[in-house]
Amino acid sequence: MTRKAVVLLSGGLDSATVLAIAKEAGFEIYALSFRYGQRNYPELKAAEWLAKNAEVKKHLVMQIDMGLIGGSALTDEIEVPKGGQTEDIPVTYVPARNTIFLSFALGWAEVIGATDIFIGVNALDYSGYPDCRPEFIEAFEKMANLATKVGVEGKSFRIHTPLIDLTKGQIIKKGVELGVDYGRTHSCYDPTPEGLACGSCDTCLLRKKGFADAGVADPTRYIKEPGKV
Amino acid sequence: MTRKAVVLLSGGLDSATVLAIAKEAGFEIYALSFRYGQRNYPELKAAEWLAKNAEVKKHLVMQIDMGLIGGSALTDEIEVPKGGQTEDIPVTYVPARNTIFLSFALGWAEVIGATDIFIGVNALDYSGYPDCRPEFIEAFEKMANLATKVGVEGKSFRIHTPLIDLTKGQIIKKGVELGVDYGRTHSCYDPTPEGLACGSCDTCLLRKKGFADAGVADPTRYIKEPGKV
Repeated sequence: MTRKAVVLLSGGLDSATVLAIAKEAGFEIYALSFRYGQRNYPELKAAEWLAKNAEVKKHLVMQIDMGLIGGSALTDEIEVPKGGQTEDIPVTYVPARNTIFLSFALGWAEVIGATDIFIGVNALDYSGYPDCRPEFIEAFEKMANLATKVGVEGKSFRIHTPLIDLTKGQIIKKGVELGVDYGRTHSCYDPTPEGLACGSCDTCLLRKKGFADAGVADPTRYIKEPGKV
Repeated sequence: MTRKAVVLLSGGLDSATVLAIAKEAGFEIYALSFRYGQRNYPELKAAEWLAKNAEVKKHLVMQIDMGLIGGSALTDEIEVPKGGQTEDIPVTYVPARNTIFLSFALGWAEVIGATDIFIGVNALDYSGYPDCRPEFIEAFEKMANLATKVGVEGKSFRIHTPLIDLTKGQIIKKGVELGVDYGRTHSCYDPTPEGLACGSCDTCLLRKKGFADAGVADPTRYIKEPGKV
């Protein structure tokens, strides 16, 4: 029997790569996305395309209203900062976001009888969010085994983080090898209504640098084409 | 400044008692409830009444669709079992429910600047759910401190479980001391549309036994009055 895995799929560059890695590893994929009041709707359209293209077994889009909780530039009316990273945890940090996403993934995994969960966190070329660090993932795994029937029955969950030690350039190289169409992924925190990337938020800058480092042409559609004024 | 706390408030007997305990301890209360596709709508009405009566600072009801995930008699079309507990984890177990609820509480706590979270889990007179055990709560606390800005800044979250070692009877005695109106709480897994308790599901049986053990008159409105045929 094919082993099942839940893959958290935002529709961004990282999760698209993780999806390809999980697929390559032979898992039957249950893709999980969230509509959480984010500005970034093109991301969800990208997730839908990626899930369909990867012929996942099921793609679930859960609606949760993080906006009610507030506290992030990604869901609130706080201005998305432009022009590069600072030392601090940025205002685009959504409180407990990965904890919440992994918790739903855990619930779904238990229902479908999966013990493998994939998430595209990255501790290297990342935005300084605490819930992207390996020590967080380890702690979540321990908690998950105590939270569930699976743990009680003596099996264990594994949270796979295949990108955790990779640079953005290495992630892109890996994805290109696996045939990921990065033109269909979406990363920008502040896209236009048509889905064009702003080219200047943290994640756009990381993404641009990644393609440059990988020596791969950047297929992203920006408001202004890179290099042009 | 008054310390803030997030209190998970289902509207049941346990969470009503926890709310009273947090209030008595002097916290400014942020009550958090969930509409998660459960059959048990009277529970949410009870939560609203309890929050208002306790003059909480804010009561947030988050809508999340656990039904999409499936896997429980509380959200699916599985029959709620009647007539007492068995040794196994029951079909009313909602996968990862407390993990998901605590994750949202964590996100909200971080936004409002609280490090105290209250949850009415109980490891004694409980229904055998793995996510009610003290070892789960400890693991969640550790994970929470790694997941958040709060942890990075050297502070820590505390998950308060004031009921964890109490019998249902002791919980009720405690609540009565604190003035909890248990007639306004709701526990039944399978209520009538009018909100009457079935009197025979696991939680009704536990609740009845609790009132008997505490020597307190049971104010619950059952389909049939206890003792009558």
